[in-house]
Amino acid sequence: MLSVPGALDAEQFKAICRGHPGGVSVITAQGPDGPVAFTATSVASVSVDPPILIFSVSSLSSAAPSILAADSVVVHLLDADDVDLAKLAATSGVDRFADTSAWTRLPTGEPVFPGVRAWTRAKVVSHLEAGGSTVVAVHALQGQINRGAEHEAGPLVYHNRTWHKLGAHSRLD
Amino acid sequence: MLSVPGALDAEQFKAICRGHPGGVSVITAQGPDGPVAFTATSVASVSVDPPILIFSVSSLSSAAPSILAADSVVVHLLDADDVDLAKLAATSGVDRFADTSAWTRLPTGEPVFPGVRAWTRAKVVSHLEAGGSTVVAVHALQGQINRGAEHEAGPLVYHNRTWHKLGAHSRLD
Repeated sequence: MLSVPGALDAEQFKAICRGHPGGVSVITAQGPDGPVAFTATSVASVSVDPPILIFSVSSLSSAAPSILAADSVVVHLLDADDVDLAKLAATSGVDRFADTSAWTRLPTGEPVFPGVRAWTRAKVVSHLEAGGSTVVAVHALQGQINRGAEHEAGPLVYHNRTWHKLGAHSRLD
Repeated sequence: MLSVPGALDAEQFKAICRGHPGGVSVITAQGPDGPVAFTATSVASVSVDPPILIFSVSSLSSAAPSILAADSVVVHLLDADDVDLAKLAATSGVDRFADTSAWTRLPTGEPVFPGVRAWTRAKVVSHLEAGGSTVVAVHALQGQINRGAEHEAGPLVYHNRTWHKLGAHSRLD
């Protein structure tokens, strides 16, 4: 039987989590004051039938009020060619929609950056409060794949404040 | 304004998600019939204060009944040195606890594979039904970091049915 260390403090918890890599997404919605976008590493597909994705949004994110009030969002699943968008939507205090050539609107009103690897418009189906964040479950309705899983751009991964690209160079076997 | 494609079918949704990489974790719990373990790519830290992680478990997983009945779990956050454990806990029909030298029990009863990059014992705080899966939010109580974020083993990432290792070779900038 293992002896157990004491309670985790915030720094230890952050150190545990900082070492955990994640795929990178940008989530957009139409808010009462205009479009909002934020970068998330928490997106996971949890069900195929029905097609459900989850993500979390921190109460500290400027996009949070609009995301939590939205009935629908667009989840953009990024690859390494999309790293500039990932950085933009993770930067505080900038207008994430300043480049009007980079985004458009769906007929249903949501802002979309149509050039990313893949995106899906999704209906919000439930919320779960989780400490300083809210977990949002969404039902994917429509979408587009611009670059398949084998595309040379390569998947984008965030780890310990750095950006990585997967490819043959990173394969384990 | 973008013209929108039709409704996503299951194959399109799977193709969108298969292209999305994820960090790799193994989650364990003590069930009524013994210890259970499964591999997840859905783990995300969503709050630091309180320290909350989320993960999802598919109703198709043999571990699901025990995980959903558990009051506490151990979340193991893996690196590339842990890929054999990730594969073991992702393989159907094998005894994931056959190698008794690889795991032990905490004084509180949960099975733990203590050699992984980092692990945390966590109390289950809420469940959210999400299609064919359940999202579980857990409060991290205790834990251990055996290898820091800069360790040469490198983070482990799963993408499109392949295992990858991050490092200087995969950095974008």
